[in-house]
This record gives sequence, C-alpha cells and structure tokens, in this order.
Amino acid sequence: MYQFPEHLLGGYQKFMNGRFAEQQARYKTLAETGQQPKTLIVACCDSRAAPETIFDSGPGELFVVRNVANMVPPYEPDGQYHSTSAALEFAVQSLRVKDIVVMGHGRCGGIKAVLDSGAEPLSPGDFIGKWMNMLKPSAEQIAGNDMMTAAERQRAMEHVSIRNSIVNLRTFPCVQILEQRGKLQLHGAWFDISTGELWVMDPKSGDFSRPGT
Amino acid sequence: MYQFPEHLLGGYQKFMNGRFAEQQARYKTLAETGQQPKTLIVACCDSRAAPETIFDSGPGELFVVRNVANMVPPYEPDGQYHSTSAALEFAVQSLRVKDIVVMGHGRCGGIKAVLDSGAEPLSPGDFIGKWMNMLKPSAEQIAGNDMMTAAERQRAMEHVSIRNSIVNLRTFPCVQILEQRGKLQLHGAWFDISTGELWVMDPKSGDFSRPGT
Amino acid sequence: MYQFPEHLLGGYQKFMNGRFAEQQARYKTLAETGQQPKTLIVACCDSRAAPETIFDSGPGELFVVRNVANMVPPYEPDGQYHSTSAALEFAVQSLRVKDIVVMGHGRCGGIKAVLDSGAEPLSPGDFIGKWMNMLKPSAEQIAGNDMMTAAERQRAMEHVSIRNSIVNLRTFPCVQILEQRGKLQLHGAWFDISTGELWVMDPKSGDFSRPGT
Amino acid sequence: MYQFPEHLLGGYQKFMNGRFAEQQARYKTLAETGQQPKTLIVACCDSRAAPETIFDSGPGELFVVRNVANMVPPYEPDGQYHSTSAALEFAVQSLRVKDIVVMGHGRCGGIKAVLDSGAEPLSPGDFIGKWMNMLKPSAEQIAGNDMMTAAERQRAMEHVSIRNSIVNLRTFPCVQILEQRGKLQLHGAWFDISTGELWVMDPKSGDFSRPGT
Repeated sequence: MYQFPEHLLGGYQKFMNGRFAEQQARYKTLAETGQQPKTLIVACCDSRAAPETIFDSGPGELFVVRNVANMVPPYEPDGQYHSTSAALEFAVQSLRVKDIVVMGHGRCGGIKAVLDSGAEPLSPGDFIGKWMNMLKPSAEQIAGNDMMTAAERQRAMEHVSIRNSIVNLRTFPCVQILEQRGKLQLHGAWFDISTGELWVMDPKSGDFSRPGT
Repeated sequence: MYQFPEHLLGGYQKFMNGRFAEQQARYKTLAETGQQPKTLIVACCDSRAAPETIFDSGPGELFVVRNVANMVPPYEPDGQYHSTSAALEFAVQSLRVKDIVVMGHGRCGGIKAVLDSGAEPLSPGDFIGKWMNMLKPSAEQIAGNDMMTAAERQRAMEHVSIRNSIVNLRTFPCVQILEQRGKLQLHGAWFDISTGELWVMDPKSGDFSRPGT
Repeated sequence: MYQFPEHLLGGYQKFMNGRFAEQQARYKTLAETGQQPKTLIVACCDSRAAPETIFDSGPGELFVVRNVANMVPPYEPDGQYHSTSAALEFAVQSLRVKDIVVMGHGRCGGIKAVLDSGAEPLSPGDFIGKWMNMLKPSAEQIAGNDMMTAAERQRAMEHVSIRNSIVNLRTFPCVQILEQRGKLQLHGAWFDISTGELWVMDPKSGDFSRPGT
Repeated sequence: MYQFPEHLLGGYQKFMNGRFAEQQARYKTLAETGQQPKTLIVACCDSRAAPETIFDSGPGELFVVRNVANMVPPYEPDGQYHSTSAALEFAVQSLRVKDIVVMGHGRCGGIKAVLDSGAEPLSPGDFIGKWMNMLKPSAEQIAGNDMMTAAERQRAMEHVSIRNSIVNLRTFPCVQILEQRGKLQLHGAWFDISTGELWVMDPKSGDFSRPGT
C-alpha cells in the first residue's frame, strides 16, 4: 500500500505544530498579497547548504534557485529549456528583487566532478558532465595545479565558479541595466559546511572574506 | 562601500547562534563523511514553499532542486545545459536517493503565467515562456474551462504539472530501472501556502489528498 | 402481514424518547403558530448530506428542498409541474425566508452521471438523464479535461453546478427583486462527505473556501 | 463584507464537534464505498417534518426527496425536468432501495393552499398552484365538505395526498415490476407535528393508525 515517506510526514508535523503555528497569519497574508521576496539566491542542491537554514529565513523572504554547483549559465535566448535563466528572469523582471546572491559551498560534488577529468559519466546522457561544461576551461586550469592539494584546488574552483556565475549574471541585459541604474546588486558568498562560516566576496577583487574580519 | 545584504547577515547570525550551535557536531561529520541524503525534492523557487522549512529538515537530509514551477523536463540527452536533469542524474546515480518528491504549491507564479496565454514576455529572451512551454498543451486544455474559476483552473494546473513531472521522471532510464527494481520511489505533493496543508498524490489515481483524511 | 420498516420504527422511538421529549413544547408551539423558518436550503437527496444533520437544526429552522444534485432549474412559468420552483416560490413569497443556500456535496451521483456521457439510461424514461440535462453544456466542458483526474473533474462539476443553481435562482423575478432590495441573500456551500468539511462560496469569485482559513 | 449565515455556521460547529466527531470513521467509509441507503423517503420541505430527525437517522441510511406536500407525480416520460421522478428512478434502479415511504404531516402549507381555491397565486408564475394541481380534483371534493371543520378537511386531504402519491408510484414501471417481485415495498406515513405521533398507512384500506395501537 502506497505510503508517502514517513520521515517527511514526521518533519511536516513538526513544522505544522511549530513554525507554521507561530507564523500562521503570515502565511495567510503572503498567500493573499503574493510573494514579494527582495532577494534571489542561487544555491547548490547540496543537503548541507540550504539558504533558508543558513540565513534563518521565513516565508516570503528568499526566492531560491537550487541547481548542481549553484551555477548561472550565460545568457542564451535560443529556445531551449533554461530553468535557471527562467528563474532569474522572473526574479528580476517580475518580482523586482534588489539583490542576487550566488552562494557556493565547500566540498561541492559538482565542482569535484568537473575537476576530475577522468571520471566516468554517471549515465549515457552524462547530464552532470554537460552541465558542468560551463566550467570546463577554468577547471582544466585549476586541475593542472599539482602543487596545490586536492582540497585547495577544490576550494579555489568553488571560488572561480562563483565569480564565473556573477560574470554570467551580467550577460543578461535586464541584470546589466538594473545593476547600472543602482536598482540591483550582485553578491557572491561561500559557506563552509564544516565550520558554518560564511565568506562574502569582495566585488572589486573577487576575494572572499568573513564579515567582521 | 560594498555591503553584503544586512538582512541576510542578521539571519546568518541567528543561524550561527541557534541551529548551527546545536548541530555543530553534525555539520562537521557531514563535511567529513560526505552528504548522504536519501531524498531528492524538486520544489519551486517560491519564497513560501521551501522544502527544508516544510519538512523541518536539517543538514544532510534533503537534496533539493528548486526551479520555477518545480518541473522535471523530459529526458533529452542532446548536449544542452540541463540543470534539472543533471541534478536528477547526480541524485539517482551518485547519491543513490531512495525517494524523489515533486512538490508543487498553491498560487504558483509560473503556473499562473502558463495559463495566461495573453501575457507579455518578461524579456525579449522570454525564458519563463519557453521554460513553461513544457506545460503548454495541458495548459491550453485547462485554460479553456470558463465554467471553472481562475483559482480552480490554477490549482487544477498545479496538479497537472506535478503529474506531468512524474511522468517525465520515468523517461529517465536510470529512474525507470531503479523504480522497477523497487529501489526508488516517486512521490507527488502539493503544499497549500495559505493553510499550510500538505496534499500527497495517490500514485494510482493521481488524486491529491491530505494524509489522515 | 404488513409491517412498516422496523429500522424506521426503531429510529422513531429514539426520536420520541430523545429529541422530541426534550423539545416537546417547541413542537407544540410551532404547530400552533406555524413554521417560520428563515432559511431555505436546496440540498441533494444523498443519504450522507442531510442539512438538518450538517447544520444541527431543530424543528422550525430550515425549509428544505432535496432533489438529485441539489439543482435549481431556471425560471420557466410554462405550466408543467415544477417542484423545486414551487418550493422556491413558497419559501420566498410566503415564508419570506432571508437566506437561500444551495448546498452541494462530494461524490454526488447525479454529477457523476452527467459527466459520464456514455452511461446507459436507468430506465426508458431516462428521468435522471433529462433532469441532469440542465448541466449538460457545462458537463461537456469539464468532462473534456483528460489532464484532470476523474475525482478532480467531479469536484469541479459539483462547484459549477452550485454556481449554476445560484444563477438560476436569480432568473426568478421574486428572488431578483428581493435580493436587490437587500431582503434576501443567496449562498453556495459544498459539503465534503468524507472529512465533514464545509466549504462556502465567495459570491464575487465563485471560489469555495473553508470559513476561518 | 460577505458572510455565510452565522446561525448555520454555529450549527455546523456543533455538528463537527458532536455527531461528526462520533461518526468520523463512518463518514469516511461511506465516502469510499458509496452510499447504500435502502430506504427512499418522500417528505415535505416543511421545517417541522425532517425525516432524519423523525427517524433518528445517520449518514447512509435514508435517500430523501423533499418537495412541497411530499408528492410523487404520475409517470410522464416526456422530456421535461422532473426532479421527483429523477430521484425516484435513481433510488429504485441505481441504489436499489427496498422501501419507499411517502410521509405527509399535519398543517401542511401546500395542502392548505390546494384546499383554498380562492387563494391568490404567490407569483405570476404560480408555481405552487401548478404543482398542487396534481391534487386539484381530490381537493375540490374534500373542500366541498362544509360539515367537516377546516382542520378535519386539512387532515383528510393530507391522507388523500399520501394515498395519491402511492398510486402514482405504481405508475412507474420499475416500481410496479419490483413491487410485484417482492423486492420493493411501498409505505405511507403521516407525522403529527404537534404531538410527534407517527401514523402508518394500512396498504389495504388506506387507513392511518399508530403502530402499537
């Protein structure tokens, strides 16, 4: 007999008895007025890097795209399904978000995969391989650094990827225009899944540092 | 002078002082052993429908894809970037998840857009329009029901979309094979963002009902 | 030897010993003064949808019409027997009710019949078929939605029928006039025979929702 | 702002907290298996003569038609809306009820109207007048008895009407056939709304008496 996953139903009960009970009025209002999140976050699917958890967010606050390795592809209006581009367009043009954050994290499986050129495709379709191809050129450069440790190359590539996504964001005319007008700000962040530390990207240098240090 | 969004830093502080402090050991372990979530959830970017919130999940539990209207495209191994397909492949073949949940929600902006055939594209690229094209045929059928109210058509389409995504999941050979072997189960769910009610899809009829009723 | 149904006599005894005993004076008074119910309810014959049960009503409170699929036909002063129209006229003009409620319910057999165009008539007279013809045009629209499940089409049609009956109520000049003068209010409701939930129709949108949500 | 009648919502709450809470499982089962009432009752709309109350019935027990003066029209398969005939056909052919009860009651407004030949129509459509025409010939006979009191003529006519409806029931081929085969039984009853007494009709003589006397 069909059963929805028990662990999910259990968690849902806690949500209903806890957070939802506390915020019931807010949920109702948001349903009636519509969502008006002012921040778009592009984050990774990774189970250890959920933006709502890291930023302690409630309903209505964050419009969230989650894909492998939190990547924003370049602007390509060519008729193919482009889920991240669609979410970006919706967030910028319809919701009129004020901030876009690209948040990467440590030990990212997608980044690990693109650094490992000898890896077997996961399926004949090799979707991960093709998705990560966006980073192939950079990955080849970083992967060639045999003087760095694997963990150092991993982190370096995570940073490269975030910077790359921000460059790609600016290839979208709507992003470019609104950023120039001062109506939209782009941010990079990197979350250390082991220590919980949040590193923020300096827009000029591309360097990551912890706020307050 | 550059400033990372204050509201996000504030939320991050609460996270560090609260949940992270409580689960510090868990975060460390997960970083070392790697993530082993057993559930993939495909959810919407909508700020009111975050899976971690709804299922009260902690780090390591859910591998999450978030795109507009929580859609799974059909299997198309054609070389284009396919972010949702890549995440699916990674979850099924690498993480070996046991359950995939496609979770839709009420008042979905993407669904509203595909039902409104007269809407102007949000940008020349019309990414939302092309992304939602996956549902165009069904949307035309539902949109034609002038005896139903707009809200009724909206909900009907949200259900259609979830069922459609589950059909598309099965077009992926790895999903089909593992499901047939009993190693992978597919689930549909719909979250009422106003009342907090969770509706679960019956795999036989495709109908949604609340567990316990 | 002739016997009145035992189960009915048994129930009648309970009534006499219970509710009637408690309300004996009320019954006597109502008999003397006449009934003055201020509410007319049009409900279905279905054994699971009795208004007196659902609204916990006592004698003198509700003037009740029960027919298949709780329908109000359009105003047609043509000389044929029109039982629902007669009851309506009596309620509005003679009893001067203040509220008319059209109450539908889930899993309605009449609605199921009108959605199923291939069904055999129950008798050569095909009374159900002809009675339900009032809804045929709408039913054809709803029945054509193969993207919706049977249960979803059923519920959509139950809602359509209630809205349709309310439109038909307004074709009665006496109803129209009294409603415009603010002396009569029309209401739609839908009862979930499985969960007991009562859904009330919003007069502007035609949408059904549960009071309090 | 729109408000569903308060008194109905109040009664509904009592129902949910009381009878529904007690019978929750029964409602659920009936929804799943379908209704299987074995009794059809044709009763009057009168607020003092609800069958569920008089027979202390629960969900699933009685299939109920309520019209003005609890009348069954003669069999006329002519294409007009015939709500009572449709309900009868459904009850007999689809639900396969075993008993049909025609229940009249004292102080019936419809009966009073048909006895009063000088009454003004309630509306230009005169629906009550035309509905009650079924009884016009008998009514003229009864009305001419000026040696009987008005209350005696009223009660006599109420009895005549019940007997007339039972004759009309037998003009329906499906009723006739099933009655002859012993699969369907017809009953007449009359409820004294003042004393609560139930009188049952003897099928041979047409006389009404109280069971046990």
